Amino acid sequence: MNGAIYIVGAGPGDPSLITVRGAEVLARADIVFFDRLVHPETLAYAPPTARRIYVGKSRGADPDAQANIHERMIAEARAGRVVVRLKGGDPFVFGRGGEEIQALAGAGAPFEIVPGVSAAVAAPAGAGISLSLRGVASAFGVFAAHSAAGGEIDWGLAARMPTAVFLMGVARLPELAARLIECGRAPSTPVAVIERATLPEERVVFGTLADIADRARGVESPATIVVGETVGVAASLGVRGRRFRVERETLSPTLIEAR
Amino acid sequence: MNGAIYIVGAGPGDPSLITVRGAEVLARADIVFFDRLVHPETLAYAPPTARRIYVGKSRGADPDAQANIHERMIAEARAGRVVVRLKGGDPFVFGRGGEEIQALAGAGAPFEIVPGVSAAVAAPAGAGISLSLRGVASAFGVFAAHSAAGGEIDWGLAARMPTAVFLMGVARLPELAARLIECGRAPSTPVAVIERATLPEERVVFGTLADIADRARGVESPATIVVGETVGVAASLGVRGRRFRVERETLSPTLIEAR
Repeated sequence: MNGAIYIVGAGPGDPSLITVRGAEVLARADIVFFDRLVHPETLAYAPPTARRIYVGKSRGADPDAQANIHERMIAEARAGRVVVRLKGGDPFVFGRGGEEIQALAGAGAPFEIVPGVSAAVAAPAGAGISLSLRGVASAFGVFAAHSAAGGEIDWGLAARMPTAVFLMGVARLPELAARLIECGRAPSTPVAVIERATLPEERVVFGTLADIADRARGVESPATIVVGETVGVAASLGVRGRRFRVERETLSPTLIEAR
Repeated sequence: MNGAIYIVGAGPGDPSLITVRGAEVLARADIVFFDRLVHPETLAYAPPTARRIYVGKSRGADPDAQANIHERMIAEARAGRVVVRLKGGDPFVFGRGGEEIQALAGAGAPFEIVPGVSAAVAAPAGAGISLSLRGVASAFGVFAAHSAAGGEIDWGLAARMPTAVFLMGVARLPELAARLIECGRAPSTPVAVIERATLPEERVVFGTLADIADRARGVESPATIVVGETVGVAASLGVRGRRFRVERETLSPTLIEAR
């Protein structure tokens, strides 16, 4: 096989929430460059002989480090290797995949994008929150509350979205709630904070813009914040605890190895 | 195994873009209720003996038909069967999964939500379009342009979103472009229309708000529309055609059967 670079979304946390395509590509990897939020078991889809390179530290702060990763990926692909760039969630939802493909396309390197399930969608789903809901929410917006990820939030815009999802924002939760209220969102608007979504340690806190900062004290990153009336519908359903897991021992790395 | 209901996102089109968890659940299904946009090969993850029930016709127009589906699913689960409700994309992104779990939770039926890759993210990704891009777009909004899916679009809000994604809107493309311009978005704003995303027949048309209705004449549903400066960055990269597919014969149904 000729060398190639795959930009793969690892999904929101649980290793079984990567796509089949992503798992297949990992199963053929010679070298994997992975980020901070990738679950260790997701790396088990790659062959034991594949090199695993952690590149999570650079996290946008250091452009030289980013360029260095791109150069290494391109060099490996040119040497005929199958390179996987494994990112948490989806590469193009605040995953900086857009910057990576600009570098790869500029260098004429062959690559493929394998999308992933974003925590922006999966974290609410796990708490029973539908981002859209007929008669309740006909649109949703996704915002990165960490300025390194994109720029400052347009709070007026966020306040008007029927459902607003904030990634990487739990450290700013009191400010976030205050700003949305300032911009006209009712203090009684339902809010959910989902910590470590889809993992066994997942924790969901429901509240309102007025009280969520108190209620979610102690929640740590990574967490997803969802604001809007659709959250209230989910809270009243009591979906939490209704989910179940069957036959976890058949989890996916086994499935891939079995081929 | 006791009966249970899984609400599973099938992904944006290509059968390999379902999650590993979704494929595992399908592999254990006794009965599958599937929607219009589910790829036939995705159903191949289910055992040959599983019953496959097409429920795509009802599409929201008929509440009785929806209630009937819920009753059948609950009855099958109570009879000890593994029931999969398979929906295109993600169940909670304009997939009406929210309404389904309200019915299931109300009846006390056990269920699990398995998220999927939404076309809202995957369709742009396939065209090299990152929904967020540092210095270009720090947020994105997703809107259903088909009124049956949620209600009328707030065009003023959509016009202000750094990146706006419209699902189910290709029939209304001329109106959509006109409304966004009326609401203050520059006519030169880049737009992409992605038809049959992630499938071999995929087609991508780039343009601007001023000319996209002409350029995309002939594009049919299902299609995803993306509006924003990040589309212009992607258009200039020329990513289209750079993607590749390796060893498609190892596609996933085989992988699941091999266990």
